[in-house]
Amino acid sequence: MAQFFGPKGTRDMFPEDMAMREHLFTSWERTCKRFGFEKYDGPMFEHLDVFTQKSGDEIEKQLYAFEDKGGRKIALRPEMTPTLARMVAARAGALKRPVRWYSMPTLFRYERSQKGRLREFIQLNMDILGIADVTADAELIAAAIHVLLDLGLTSSDFKVHISSRVLLEELLCGVGVAKEMLPSIYALLDKKAKIPPEVFTTELSSIVSDVVLCNNITTVLTAQTLDEATSLVPDAPAVITMKRLLAMLDAYGIGDCIMFDIGIVRGLAYYTGIVFEVYDTNQEMRAIAGGGRYDKLVSQYGGPDTPAIGFAVGDVVLTDLLSEKKLLPTVPGRSRVFVATFERDEPFKAIAMTKLIRDAGISAENTLKLQAIGKQLNQAAAAGVKWTVIVGGDEEKEGLYMLREMQSGTEKKIPFALICDQVQRDSF
Amino acid sequence: MAQFFGPKGTRDMFPEDMAMREHLFTSWERTCKRFGFEKYDGPMFEHLDVFTQKSGDEIEKQLYAFEDKGGRKIALRPEMTPTLARMVAARAGALKRPVRWYSMPTLFRYERSQKGRLREFIQLNMDILGIADVTADAELIAAAIHVLLDLGLTSSDFKVHISSRVLLEELLCGVGVAKEMLPSIYALLDKKAKIPPEVFTTELSSIVSDVVLCNNITTVLTAQTLDEATSLVPDAPAVITMKRLLAMLDAYGIGDCIMFDIGIVRGLAYYTGIVFEVYDTNQEMRAIAGGGRYDKLVSQYGGPDTPAIGFAVGDVVLTDLLSEKKLLPTVPGRSRVFVATFERDEPFKAIAMTKLIRDAGISAENTLKLQAIGKQLNQAAAAGVKWTVIVGGDEEKEGLYMLREMQSGTEKKIPFALICDQVQRDSF
Repeated sequence: MAQFFGPKGTRDMFPEDMAMREHLFTSWERTCKRFGFEKYDGPMFEHLDVFTQKSGDEIEKQLYAFEDKGGRKIALRPEMTPTLARMVAARAGALKRPVRWYSMPTLFRYERSQKGRLREFIQLNMDILGIADVTADAELIAAAIHVLLDLGLTSSDFKVHISSRVLLEELLCGVGVAKEMLPSIYALLDKKAKIPPEVFTTELSSIVSDVVLCNNITTVLTAQTLDEATSLVPDAPAVITMKRLLAMLDAYGIGDCIMFDIGIVRGLAYYTGIVFEVYDTNQEMRAIAGGGRYDKLVSQYGGPDTPAIGFAVGDVVLTDLLSEKKLLPTVPGRSRVFVATFERDEPFKAIAMTKLIRDAGISAENTLKLQAIGKQLNQAAAAGVKWTVIVGGDEEKEGLYMLREMQSGTEKKIPFALICDQVQRDSF
Repeated sequence: MAQFFGPKGTRDMFPEDMAMREHLFTSWERTCKRFGFEKYDGPMFEHLDVFTQKSGDEIEKQLYAFEDKGGRKIALRPEMTPTLARMVAARAGALKRPVRWYSMPTLFRYERSQKGRLREFIQLNMDILGIADVTADAELIAAAIHVLLDLGLTSSDFKVHISSRVLLEELLCGVGVAKEMLPSIYALLDKKAKIPPEVFTTELSSIVSDVVLCNNITTVLTAQTLDEATSLVPDAPAVITMKRLLAMLDAYGIGDCIMFDIGIVRGLAYYTGIVFEVYDTNQEMRAIAGGGRYDKLVSQYGGPDTPAIGFAVGDVVLTDLLSEKKLLPTVPGRSRVFVATFERDEPFKAIAMTKLIRDAGISAENTLKLQAIGKQLNQAAAAGVKWTVIVGGDEEKEGLYMLREMQSGTEKKIPFALICDQVQRDSF
């Protein structure tokens, strides 16, 4: 007999795994609704050009791409933003602004699977479209932070590292960097955290020969605070925007979750303003979440110019972090009540009692096996129920039913009319 | 500029579409939990042989199948049961019996898209594994019916058509049909509803030459009730099972949703006992749901012999039916409260008020545009909010805030401490 396995980099979600995912989902939904976002979704796959339009042909390397039976080039979605941009572009005239949308897509990337990275994973995406002011950046970053706070994480567990593409460019050009040199410097900055300082210095001097300029660039790129970073170019216009953002985030009451970090570049070419990434405080894990402003994207999909900011948080690293911080819940029992029965022919009384309890909105299951009561109680314990009701016993003649609290083993005889009341309580 | 569209047979779910899907999902979750089922999920794609193991190579015709970059044959899942069987087989020893599982998978079939049938759709699947007795069939059919009842449908809107593979075989063999003739008769029965009675008779006589046998088969296959169907073979053992099932469904209080229908064959070859399909009462639409017993499947995936029964209901036909019966809800507003502000420099007061309301668990959004109050109220109306709080007005000096009930336009000045209380009510 052949054995059958799920594909590499994917997960079988057994109920105990699924309970953790549902915990995430419930929390995500709660935060998104509290922040006034509306849910959307798109197809699990798109025409290939929807993805290459945003990320260029090189994205194809990490796509599950194929031809469908009609000869169309199709790819499983590796991210949600191209679908979002396509949908907003298609209905740009009819959508009320600002668009405040969230989605919880399953995504697919053909990558080497490793800790924190799988080939199939789920993200929460939140986006605000139609607002150019940094008020939207503040609102969105506040939402991202509350997504984490709602799960029980605190400002001592994570930090949102914030920078700005515009600010970085103004600062570098302000100290004398020529525009055509920027891409090389961004690329170097992007790997700065992974290389020793002396390698950074050597590589920088191979890009920039002038020693003074080199030193000034280093001052900008190694700054620990906004004031340090802007010390050489204090009047850069984007400094004001950044300061406004930080002040608003203070008004949202989340200043302690925030740090300025000039080193945040974000790999994707399409960001146009504020960019941010969320890391665990010890920075031992991959980024938990990331986002930024992308004001040009919707127009690239045939829509009008539409300022936009968004972020995404994946389920894999986040679940690892919650597990490390012991913030994942215990797996709940699947039913609250188990209905056992002394019936030996047909379980009609068990069925009727189960119906009564379910009709009251309480989760219940009945023994599907007419076996000895002891075995039925074992079945009830395995199902993790809180209560077992036993029907078909002698006490039924007096209109009473045996109710057993499973954890303590305490049993009481309860009148029919009080059963639902009692099982909704936590104990006798 | 190129235009971008979603792939054929898929849906873009804008918030108003998504609200309908979420309505389904919320109801499905509620019923599954009330019935004591646990949620699971698997990968969106499987190795191709996971699907051909159950359905044979011909299934490949309607699959989105492709090779991944590692040369593995992969297919997007067209149904959930193969994944379920693979997962149960993999952990058969550790799973508590009965397994009571549900899932809400997105599925993919490369078919001609038409009314009620898309290439990407969603199903609710519920399965009970580990119980051979018809008690499980009754429980599962009760669950299927409550899935529909919970959405507001009634027994006058739909009927569950029930038959049994075993009963049909016993009846046909009981009147004298040879075993090797059964497949041809099943195939004819499967298309019986779509052909005129005289064509049915002609085709039957081309399979069966004996006139008496032909008449007896016709008596079985055109029966309207269980008694009629079994009149020639009253002692067929499966009659007892069917009668037990119907009696239990009465105990579940859903007898009026049920009808015996000897014509239910179900296309898939793997059913081994009770089979059922749900149709709208007028039988104008495709089947709404279907299921049956499949006792051999888990062992085909390397697991132990495991009796099993399950059903699936798709979102497409069900949504059509709910729409026709006017049982779909109106789209809710995305926030309960809109925070408008007289502030002209920075919206710090608006942010603080929004935070206050959200911290009380109430959905709120603030104006992200510091524009005239009239325009902000338009924005609030477009967002569909119930209440608008206006901050930064003169009344703030007295500790009061202007609260506007959007539908009536009524405004009142409310002390800070009472704002959350008030907005949780439906009106002043």
